[in-house]
Amino acid sequence: MSGKGWKLSLAHGAGGREMEELLGWLVFSRVEDRLSTLGGVGLKAADDGATIPMPDGRHLVLTADAYTVEPMFFPGGDIGKLAACGSINDVVMMGGRPVAILDTIVVAEGVDSETLETVFESFLNVLRSEGVALLGGDLKVMPRDSLDSLIISTTCIGIAERPIVDTNLRQGDKVIVTGYLGDHGATILALQQGLEVGSEELKSDVKSLTPLLRVFEKWGESIRAARDPTRGGLAAVLNEWAKKTGTVIVVEGGRVPVRPAVRGYAELLGLDPLYLASEGAAVLGVDGEVAEEVLDDVVGAGFPDARIIGEVREGREYKGFVLYRTEVGGHRILEQPTGELVPRIC
Amino acid sequence: MSGKGWKLSLAHGAGGREMEELLGWLVFSRVEDRLSTLGGVGLKAADDGATIPMPDGRHLVLTADAYTVEPMFFPGGDIGKLAACGSINDVVMMGGRPVAILDTIVVAEGVDSETLETVFESFLNVLRSEGVALLGGDLKVMPRDSLDSLIISTTCIGIAERPIVDTNLRQGDKVIVTGYLGDHGATILALQQGLEVGSEELKSDVKSLTPLLRVFEKWGESIRAARDPTRGGLAAVLNEWAKKTGTVIVVEGGRVPVRPAVRGYAELLGLDPLYLASEGAAVLGVDGEVAEEVLDDVVGAGFPDARIIGEVREGREYKGFVLYRTEVGGHRILEQPTGELVPRIC
Repeated sequence: MSGKGWKLSLAHGAGGREMEELLGWLVFSRVEDRLSTLGGVGLKAADDGATIPMPDGRHLVLTADAYTVEPMFFPGGDIGKLAACGSINDVVMMGGRPVAILDTIVVAEGVDSETLETVFESFLNVLRSEGVALLGGDLKVMPRDSLDSLIISTTCIGIAERPIVDTNLRQGDKVIVTGYLGDHGATILALQQGLEVGSEELKSDVKSLTPLLRVFEKWGESIRAARDPTRGGLAAVLNEWAKKTGTVIVVEGGRVPVRPAVRGYAELLGLDPLYLASEGAAVLGVDGEVAEEVLDDVVGAGFPDARIIGEVREGREYKGFVLYRTEVGGHRILEQPTGELVPRIC
Repeated sequence: MSGKGWKLSLAHGAGGREMEELLGWLVFSRVEDRLSTLGGVGLKAADDGATIPMPDGRHLVLTADAYTVEPMFFPGGDIGKLAACGSINDVVMMGGRPVAILDTIVVAEGVDSETLETVFESFLNVLRSEGVALLGGDLKVMPRDSLDSLIISTTCIGIAERPIVDTNLRQGDKVIVTGYLGDHGATILALQQGLEVGSEELKSDVKSLTPLLRVFEKWGESIRAARDPTRGGLAAVLNEWAKKTGTVIVVEGGRVPVRPAVRGYAELLGLDPLYLASEGAAVLGVDGEVAEEVLDDVVGAGFPDARIIGEVREGREYKGFVLYRTEVGGHRILEQPTGELVPRIC
């Protein structure tokens, strides 16, 4: 990728290959190593967040996210709930207990007071129920001809005894997903396409993943990797993991939990549900020796639909790839997301 | 202020009275005290940033800001330099040494690669020269019909031995400004009004204020308050301080440093330069006993135009107000900014 003569497309923000290339060129190639970390997990790890080692042996966890979703209100939540949960979940996926948030809101002039109030109350309600402090923020108003809605950016701060870093994934590990996948993405895409949504069958799964922390604490190093499959869905997470660790990840297609309604909408829209965002699910890489026991604890922590969906194998000829095993035993490569598969949904 | 039936205007983000009312209603009235702080400076202090006490007696400083400026490029800098300096300066104004930044970029599709590259390089160049790490971030692309430019949100993290909290300001303190005021605001407003700008006389003053840290360290508790006068300018900072501390602040009008070009443009635009944003200046409240010595050190730290412009007096009948003393000895009240005095300039 070079810096000359091209324009940004929606795909550059969609969490797939174009975004990886853009960030590689724009960010990772420019930030000197010494300026990309403070001795913990830094920018170039491209994990869910960064960590800073503290003098007492614990680690500060920091995440930054921008939220823009059209429509702002959807079955299951709104942009306020999404921003709070998404930010908290990134800290949890780093093994951190969220303690504080700072937010910036950039909003278009003409947005009405009720909208602002509802969105901010949704945001706060998550913080209240999670006991996460709101320490500060900023608010800017932009002219209507420059912005048509509302953007929330958040930084969440947490404390981890032992950060979970996804490069620890290794051969023999099992892959657990904590619940049905793609609910959020299917809901937003269906709304964007003008399809009728609102039955109990299809709604965003946006929720906090903090109940997983007690599983992480109990199982320590047996939890090798954790990620919430937002932009680009399960396919994006597993491709990133396989590429980073030089392994091959094999997914048992028949075991991936997808609701019939999500599958139905995805088919209507010509999409594979494995590329659709979730906002209340996690993908875990877990030591194969204890995976069944960890799964029991994940279920016990309030994730009844959790299951093991695959495993990590030695790279060999598919090093860095994700293989999808169909129910009749065939294999295909589950590609890294590309194009505008999932624009503006998280 | 109630939540029913009104719409946001640009004034709600301009740093004046409307913004204070909005944040009071939307944010401060809703966030429970226990959720607004982690034992240090919290949300409701409405200072430049928040602090978290650390076990070793030092304090973590955290700030959050959103940057949107039209035009993105201006004499003296661009939105990238603005975001990096602005974020760093907020930490410095809390008495913290900046160590790391996280950023989110939300950008319109169709923005060209050269623009993105230039902005990001400007951002990075500040981090490089300040030795501040870029630990993480996020990037989203929005459709052209929803956003027409680029928004940067930042969180800057710093370490303070002794946070500077502006409620410490008290009767007898002197007010120092570190240089000419209003350069940034006048430049951006003139550009927005289609006036010709670009001579050496008028350009943004955007720069890092980290050289002030050694003055803060030397003078410790004698530095009572510090703030960079961005949105709403000097008038906003002093009104906030007077209101928070129940004092009256008297400004010697003839001593406030404003460049002739800034005064000229402000007159053309019908504005008072004391309401115009600076992005490379600080306002300090300093113990009156040592103010002259502190001033010498501020000058020595690279701020040759610094001067004492006023003092803090007992409240009495003007409790919470700022008085502006004209050169011939008359007084007027320097009102809190209101309206859309300085829209979208920082």
